[in-house]
Amino acid sequence: MNGPAAQGRVYGVGVGPGDPELMTVRADRLVRSARHVAYFRKAGRPGQARRIVEGMLCSDAVEHAMEYPVTTEIPLDDPAYAAALAPFYAECAARLLALVGEGEDVVTLCEGDPFFYGSFMHLHARIRGHAAVEIVPGVTGMSAAWTATDEPVTWGDDVLTVLTGTLPEPTLVARMQGADALVVMKVGRNLPKVRRAIAAAGMLERAWLVENAAMPGQTVAPLAAAAERAAPYFSIVIVHGRGRRP
Amino acid sequence: MNGPAAQGRVYGVGVGPGDPELMTVRADRLVRSARHVAYFRKAGRPGQARRIVEGMLCSDAVEHAMEYPVTTEIPLDDPAYAAALAPFYAECAARLLALVGEGEDVVTLCEGDPFFYGSFMHLHARIRGHAAVEIVPGVTGMSAAWTATDEPVTWGDDVLTVLTGTLPEPTLVARMQGADALVVMKVGRNLPKVRRAIAAAGMLERAWLVENAAMPGQTVAPLAAAAERAAPYFSIVIVHGRGRRP
Repeated sequence: MNGPAAQGRVYGVGVGPGDPELMTVRADRLVRSARHVAYFRKAGRPGQARRIVEGMLCSDAVEHAMEYPVTTEIPLDDPAYAAALAPFYAECAARLLALVGEGEDVVTLCEGDPFFYGSFMHLHARIRGHAAVEIVPGVTGMSAAWTATDEPVTWGDDVLTVLTGTLPEPTLVARMQGADALVVMKVGRNLPKVRRAIAAAGMLERAWLVENAAMPGQTVAPLAAAAERAAPYFSIVIVHGRGRRP
Repeated sequence: MNGPAAQGRVYGVGVGPGDPELMTVRADRLVRSARHVAYFRKAGRPGQARRIVEGMLCSDAVEHAMEYPVTTEIPLDDPAYAAALAPFYAECAARLLALVGEGEDVVTLCEGDPFFYGSFMHLHARIRGHAAVEIVPGVTGMSAAWTATDEPVTWGDDVLTVLTGTLPEPTLVARMQGADALVVMKVGRNLPKVRRAIAAAGMLERAWLVENAAMPGQTVAPLAAAAERAAPYFSIVIVHGRGRRP
């Protein structure tokens, strides 16, 4: 008589900022050996996390694309956004738990680091306690961005502040004023607002716009020279610290 | 007739937070194939970056240990500290440039990420313009620390503030008060001061002390329960954000 199959495990695997060589050795091994691979993507797009592992999956790997019902069509602070996303995350979590219940391991691909502004966190909150979860940290997009500028981001006792471009402009300005070194994530369509806020905080001359860090098409330019336009989704603004350097 | 040998290259390679499996694929490859390997260490100690790559170096690799003339004996803001460190970094840079001039590549090992509070930055500032330098970003110690807590560090629009425990106590308190999520690096002997500052900022109940993240002997404990003692050098305090989560 057979007992129930042992439960599988959910892996939240950071696949780094874009270049497959910037995946960790552990992530590389897990991705290459995975039977079940899950990832988020915008409907109709390949998905950035999936693109990073292109050519690395087993030929018999089963892919589980999780397509956001909305992305930027609804403002993030609109209750309709949470109302659309909450059932979506619940359904994705149920899908992974069903696999795990059948004894399968599932490798979930996460851009950058899974616990740093990532969508996997919303699955983790729903899965933990129901299944074993293992997180593999990754190189963040911001590390790739400051590396691309060819300047260290923090020196000595510099305070680093990380902001999201989705914040209201007055909040951005107020938080920037306390920073020695600065990273602004989620720039994208918020670029004109971020640029105005950095100028108001007196940092425009020191600010860099990095697009597609560690990806094909990487560019680094002074933010002051950036046109009044939306930037690619994977854009990060960097202001380097000026702390103690013996 | 032979021309001069082509110049070599200096690599600043992030070897991640401690676990060798958390090195990137590129770092792993560079370390395993390096003929010349350089790293900082405290005199009389093996050096943390060197320890991470134990067992990975070629049998004929030449090791270049760069031993700090001082570490914590002199306060960081004492002019004597810069006076001792500046010639040391100049001498290390000259040593690497001499190798590069002979056509050799040198892989410099950096804990975590080379451009995030790392000593390699002081070599980089002296070498750039004189030799080709390539930086390989790495998983940071703070990513390993928040992963160890098993909770995401930032949600939605959370502002992340990264501080060093070496800052004066009033500065720590002031900067903590503006943070949603918080990381304190370089805790070590500053633990009692950091704990007082976090309590003054009203965050003690949410704060975690992570010692030796992603290393043997990793521990995670509420900061409130931490005794009034010095912590290991590789200690990081984490306060998780509480932002939007659909």
